Amino acid sequence: MPRKTPSGLTLLVSIDPDSPEPLYRQVYQEIREAILRGRVAPGTRLPSTRTLAAELNVSRNTILTAFEHLWAEGYLEGKVGSGTRVSRELPDELLQVGAQATPVRPLLSRTPSISRRALVVAEAPFHLSSVSGPPRPFQVGLPAVREFPLDLWRRLAARRWRRSASELLNYGVSAGYRPLREVIASYLGSSRGVKCTADQVLIVAGSQHALDLAARVLLNPGDAVWMEDPGYHAARGAFIAAEAQIHPVPLDREGFDLTMALERAPEARLAYVTPSHQFPVGVTMSLRRRLELLQWASRSSGWILEDDYDSEFRYVSRPISALQGLDEDGRVIYTGTFSKVLFPSLRLGYLVVPDEVVDAFTAMLVFASTQAPTIEQAILTDFIAEGHFERHIRRMRSLYHERQEALIATVNQEVKGLLEVRAAEAGMHLTAWLPPGIDDTAASEWVAEAGVSAMPLSAFAVEPPERGGLVLGYAGFTAYEVRTAGRRLGSALRSALAGGGVRGGHVCSQSAG
Amino acid sequence: MPRKTPSGLTLLVSIDPDSPEPLYRQVYQEIREAILRGRVAPGTRLPSTRTLAAELNVSRNTILTAFEHLWAEGYLEGKVGSGTRVSRELPDELLQVGAQATPVRPLLSRTPSISRRALVVAEAPFHLSSVSGPPRPFQVGLPAVREFPLDLWRRLAARRWRRSASELLNYGVSAGYRPLREVIASYLGSSRGVKCTADQVLIVAGSQHALDLAARVLLNPGDAVWMEDPGYHAARGAFIAAEAQIHPVPLDREGFDLTMALERAPEARLAYVTPSHQFPVGVTMSLRRRLELLQWASRSSGWILEDDYDSEFRYVSRPISALQGLDEDGRVIYTGTFSKVLFPSLRLGYLVVPDEVVDAFTAMLVFASTQAPTIEQAILTDFIAEGHFERHIRRMRSLYHERQEALIATVNQEVKGLLEVRAAEAGMHLTAWLPPGIDDTAASEWVAEAGVSAMPLSAFAVEPPERGGLVLGYAGFTAYEVRTAGRRLGSALRSALAGGGVRGGHVCSQSAG
Repeated sequence: MPRKTPSGLTLLVSIDPDSPEPLYRQVYQEIREAILRGRVAPGTRLPSTRTLAAELNVSRNTILTAFEHLWAEGYLEGKVGSGTRVSRELPDELLQVGAQATPVRPLLSRTPSISRRALVVAEAPFHLSSVSGPPRPFQVGLPAVREFPLDLWRRLAARRWRRSASELLNYGVSAGYRPLREVIASYLGSSRGVKCTADQVLIVAGSQHALDLAARVLLNPGDAVWMEDPGYHAARGAFIAAEAQIHPVPLDREGFDLTMALERAPEARLAYVTPSHQFPVGVTMSLRRRLELLQWASRSSGWILEDDYDSEFRYVSRPISALQGLDEDGRVIYTGTFSKVLFPSLRLGYLVVPDEVVDAFTAMLVFASTQAPTIEQAILTDFIAEGHFERHIRRMRSLYHERQEALIATVNQEVKGLLEVRAAEAGMHLTAWLPPGIDDTAASEWVAEAGVSAMPLSAFAVEPPERGGLVLGYAGFTAYEVRTAGRRLGSALRSALAGGGVRGGHVCSQSAG
Repeated sequence: MPRKTPSGLTLLVSIDPDSPEPLYRQVYQEIREAILRGRVAPGTRLPSTRTLAAELNVSRNTILTAFEHLWAEGYLEGKVGSGTRVSRELPDELLQVGAQATPVRPLLSRTPSISRRALVVAEAPFHLSSVSGPPRPFQVGLPAVREFPLDLWRRLAARRWRRSASELLNYGVSAGYRPLREVIASYLGSSRGVKCTADQVLIVAGSQHALDLAARVLLNPGDAVWMEDPGYHAARGAFIAAEAQIHPVPLDREGFDLTMALERAPEARLAYVTPSHQFPVGVTMSLRRRLELLQWASRSSGWILEDDYDSEFRYVSRPISALQGLDEDGRVIYTGTFSKVLFPSLRLGYLVVPDEVVDAFTAMLVFASTQAPTIEQAILTDFIAEGHFERHIRRMRSLYHERQEALIATVNQEVKGLLEVRAAEAGMHLTAWLPPGIDDTAASEWVAEAGVSAMPLSAFAVEPPERGGLVLGYAGFTAYEVRTAGRRLGSALRSALAGGGVRGGHVCSQSAG
């Protein structure tokens, strides 16, 4: 039960011995509130700590501690324990304001006065929330985390903590842990045809960090950016946050089309592309288009941001070399992530930047950003240097290939005529095409009701795609899970489309709208 | 020794069996170069793989692999192995450009066309490079990492990896690992008087990430920001990167002075303050000044960014409550970091933001930034929830207090008359004042020659400080190290100042300039 004190000032002090809050803290807070709300005038003399302690039935130490606190913060003056008064230095108007301010929540209508870029981000036409809850087929971007060699990683982690933790606890080098930058440069050179030295490699905290950093270093507000459409919506998020103007460029079977791009925004400063395996449609950018784009960049001092997000998983031929390897003019910023190859919560990625802008990127990283934890970088270094990384990629490549085949077989069997899939040469997802005229957002909602996650292609598009589709991630799910979910997806689609007039009408009006 | 082939095309192909590069890769690269440089015309028929293999003395498989690669990337057309030709789809002009482009480095004089904000950052009048090499007394901001309970941390890490890693490997919640946000809200409430719920706590990847995020959400380019002067230079870095206008506000013995601030920039949108323990001078902001500042923020919808970077280490009285706890209008953004309390390379910090802007901050975090690794967040949660955090703080508080006393004793004994120090009530460093007229940058260089690191106060100042000083970090160094370095510092200062005319003249002219 709360106790009140009978003495003058202390009528205002009420404490609750059953509260988890320490008693001294309660006394402190109550007296502070009384002062701030103007219920005790400046200059008022406080009762002695002994009197207060007796009245509140707490130890004198409790009161002394509370007074010390109030004194240290300027609410009280004079010597604690004898002649303590409410500070006279507190200007009256401040205290009156304090008294007026009622502890209600600020009104929502009041402008919180945030920045223009924050408003643009808050009002973006799409969300980028993280997946929560257990993974559901066919969520996009989830690797097979259950297949990750956790025991091995744990062992490497324990060794690092044992052997070299003390040197890894202090601030690290801005651009990233040097040995990691070296193994990445060497891996990218041999596996992806990227031409770089370790000096050009910057370690970042995942893919979004890389895209953001590139946007901030390369783009002014209002600068035009070309994006493949449909394309990677999180990259769009980074460009929106940089207040760039995004110009969608439709894809054809050779991928990103420079001619079309120049028609739409001849003044563009940057092209964002996923040449190895276009996200989400999957087309590989042709050599001719690559060379055209590089020529544009050289001619106009434009930038190419090459996002090589999942090219490790190529099934039908060897991985296609990176566009960066063809660049002789320092116009390509290359980025990749370990979230997809290892596990998403690792939050480690890299940028490879031309020599000329290494300093600008590093300065931005230090001034306006963050570094990844050194110890994780060190563990990853060992994982790569000791061959586990390539081994894991090989294992996942064959596993994902099997899972893709299971998905294609299931779709062809269970969703025949309603979804058209072709084998993808690479990656962790497929785009399955809906019959013309069927709205993919509606289709996504129908299958969601059946417990299946299938992102509509239009969620990745700036301009409504000519033909709707569902983007199906398969890498994170076993063949059994893929088949079960495929059957559920099939029956949900069939019953929705067979539902006749109302739903069919709904679909048509949606896709027309 | 490199081998060359005698056949027509393959005169151009040179491979080196001693190179670490795989043979197929060498063949691939040589042919690709020849095509791109226009040394082989489009449509040229290639020799059979058998011929080439014989000529180069490699296996036919090597040639087949190289051809497959070239074919997949569009350099070759036709069926691999019979009638393979150089692709005719490659436009001539592209190849000619390829031929012209010599592989020399781009000229430095060419504009790399980076953004305005990147130029501002690159041209900032100070550097924010990370410390490299072993820590040297009296580097600022280094905690006693050798005293960190590594074994305990390792054990908690191993437990998390064992028990809950699989659920922690996927993407995490944008605002941070929920249980960590809860323990932080509760810790800040009881220890720092911060009023917040877990919903208002966002986990970020260290202090710089927090400052950057706040600057981006709250400030437009050109917005005026008040900064304590001297002040935390890394915060200045974040505001520069946000293209804000920084207005230095001189300190007095009550800390940040609103009257002075309003004289200098009445239109300011944000005040950056370190009220508990001003960085680097150490003054505590008076209650009167806190209330004035809050009143300004309410009246003008301005923002207060409260950086509570090291207030855990308070020696003479209990920690001063945070300014945030006095805010009833949702105008204070509060930030803190675990880099100083635990270890710097952990890269975990937090922001506490008013309800009204939680969504805006979270959206910016997702669109334009990064999250901290989930597993580290989970380990830290356990560390706090199981009481190790408070125990570690208590241990460090008494250790740092001893180290501060050792520093003061050494300075008073060894550098008497040349450096004036007073006991600091809190923190991990001291500002030691030089005699009036002595340039602190020069003093810092003299002691650096003696192997002692002592940042000049003016390195943290926008306007030259009235009196120079050296900022001495003591937390990361044993009392013995402090004493030894203190003696070296003393003799370096003494001999430089006794060096007479030339050096004295140098000093005076510098401090006048």
